[in-house]
Amino acid sequence: MSKSQSRIIAVYRVRAQAGSIEGRAREIALEQSVELPLAAIADPRVLADIVGQVQAIDDVGSGQFEVRIALASVTAPPEAGQLINMLFGNTSLQEDVVLADVEFPAGYPVAFGGPAIGMAGLREKTGAFGRALTAGALKPQGQSPQALAKLAGDMARGGIDMIKDDHGLADQAYSPFSARVAACARAVRDVNRATGQCSLYAPSLSGNLDQLRQQLRIAREEGLQAALIAPMVAGLPAFHALAREARDVALLAHPSMAGAARIAPPLLLGRLFRMLGADATIFPNHGGRFAYSAETCRHIARGALEPWGRLKPAAPMPAGGMTLDRVPELLDFYGHECILLIGGGLLADPDRVTEASTAFARKVGRHGTA
Amino acid sequence: MSKSQSRIIAVYRVRAQAGSIEGRAREIALEQSVELPLAAIADPRVLADIVGQVQAIDDVGSGQFEVRIALASVTAPPEAGQLINMLFGNTSLQEDVVLADVEFPAGYPVAFGGPAIGMAGLREKTGAFGRALTAGALKPQGQSPQALAKLAGDMARGGIDMIKDDHGLADQAYSPFSARVAACARAVRDVNRATGQCSLYAPSLSGNLDQLRQQLRIAREEGLQAALIAPMVAGLPAFHALAREARDVALLAHPSMAGAARIAPPLLLGRLFRMLGADATIFPNHGGRFAYSAETCRHIARGALEPWGRLKPAAPMPAGGMTLDRVPELLDFYGHECILLIGGGLLADPDRVTEASTAFARKVGRHGTA
Repeated sequence: MSKSQSRIIAVYRVRAQAGSIEGRAREIALEQSVELPLAAIADPRVLADIVGQVQAIDDVGSGQFEVRIALASVTAPPEAGQLINMLFGNTSLQEDVVLADVEFPAGYPVAFGGPAIGMAGLREKTGAFGRALTAGALKPQGQSPQALAKLAGDMARGGIDMIKDDHGLADQAYSPFSARVAACARAVRDVNRATGQCSLYAPSLSGNLDQLRQQLRIAREEGLQAALIAPMVAGLPAFHALAREARDVALLAHPSMAGAARIAPPLLLGRLFRMLGADATIFPNHGGRFAYSAETCRHIARGALEPWGRLKPAAPMPAGGMTLDRVPELLDFYGHECILLIGGGLLADPDRVTEASTAFARKVGRHGTA
Repeated sequence: MSKSQSRIIAVYRVRAQAGSIEGRAREIALEQSVELPLAAIADPRVLADIVGQVQAIDDVGSGQFEVRIALASVTAPPEAGQLINMLFGNTSLQEDVVLADVEFPAGYPVAFGGPAIGMAGLREKTGAFGRALTAGALKPQGQSPQALAKLAGDMARGGIDMIKDDHGLADQAYSPFSARVAACARAVRDVNRATGQCSLYAPSLSGNLDQLRQQLRIAREEGLQAALIAPMVAGLPAFHALAREARDVALLAHPSMAGAARIAPPLLLGRLFRMLGADATIFPNHGGRFAYSAETCRHIARGALEPWGRLKPAAPMPAGGMTLDRVPELLDFYGHECILLIGGGLLADPDRVTEASTAFARKVGRHGTA
């Protein structure tokens, strides 16, 4: 490898026989760089500077190998689509491989920008210090803007820090984006004015980049400081573009379509979403209705928070089938640098959403000061 | 279900015990619609018109069940991101489920538009009738625009119908998009002028919607009539937006990041890409370096071609580790309604690309008239 060439280290978990792993690793290195057999490459500069290089192969047991491949970073200029294309594009079509981790050269992640607001900024916006933040979700879809706004007001009255749209809310006939956002924003604003608190309402943005920008504009006009977006639904390039433009609006990344199986969740939901600009990253908590292990969740949270060059920490936001009685256990597990999101658990009795929200906020507050 | 409510039927393949599949199917129906337990839903209209409904569960053997769930189409207005979000968003995070197929209500697919040019339009553009079309790929990346343009000219001289960028070519320092596209377009144009043929050069588009539009504009300025894009890298909403705008430019959909495991390839690469506007869909051929079965490939091709309301057929474009000696076998398998893409096989000897291309075009032509 020539000294002038910086490399991205892609770490793959490969299912293979011991006798075939070396050949398989070389195939992946070619697939993710030149897509040609070495014999077909005449240009010595391509051979030296562009072809992926197998750095190490470790047997990690159970028929699995960890393969480290050095990819030329010049093939992946800091553009979100091309990065994922070079890391996993064609190899995603091969069922024996998981993209497990990535190590970037110094200076590469910061070119993407990372969170503009992040964990610390969300504390400032909500005024929540010395404790975890709380979040709730507006659902089910199918309800009118007024019905959703009532829920939003109820949660704000209970003292919830962040109130987000369900990720299924888009721009549907029964709840058009602009009408819903205006109604929910007003409901939360009214409570904030009455109480002096700073609950944030985060509408769900959807569609292509034109539509995302239009919805962001509406959210800004309503004075909103947060929004929800699913990067794997919108596409990583659109998510990244929006994150660069929404410096004043905290983006909560939703894991919809992030598929559990083929890119390790700590990498995708923890580090990559953060690098591309997620201020908070929502992920399925262990012990809920998704199958993530406690270890996976711990690694996602660590990837969002740990020191990483000049990138701000993003807020880990565990969610999914969580209930009030698990709050102390979850705070013991995640600590206070997180946003606990309880969706259905606050909505079990639609007439007592304020009471459930109050109980949630109190439990989190008490744990913070214990 | 009220009569006024049209439904999208999502078909999932679920790994489960016989005793638990009914409950699991109901969970998926809730996850992909209201994301709440039924007990938490008070609104009778939401219960009747919005909640997903389990229509059928079939034991398909080997511990797998096929589950048909009727989703309210009103939750997924014809926007690409929201469609995939409602079909598979959160459920993609659960490893026991594959999205196997989808049945749309009448009138729904055509709202997305489908191919503007399609298989028949590609025949007209290239003048290739009564036989399959041929395609080659410009690689490896790392080469200069001039080197890639030489390859493009060589392939055109061999009579290849479509010459596409490798999907790893983006806007890299060693081969900036505008310089590469100008050089390759000129090389192919010069051969076309000399011979009277109509080879198409298809540059690879990448980045966010702004960047995709800018690159499409450059391609049009060069007089190009085709372009390559990876919908799962760009994001489905960006791909769909571009397809609606590029009515005069054939879009070849590349399967990068389409992951083999969790959305059935015939659905994603065959039908969904076509519905969103792919004029041709590239997929890993059986027997190459990807693990797709012959049956999977047959179903992808069928999904691209079969009658489907007012949507034009898209061209199936098998690729991946294909060699010249397989041409007769592949044409027997796919018939003539396809584009055979041979990448590395034409480049094995960089000094004899024209000869390999000529041999490829002749084999396909002879099979067509046999």
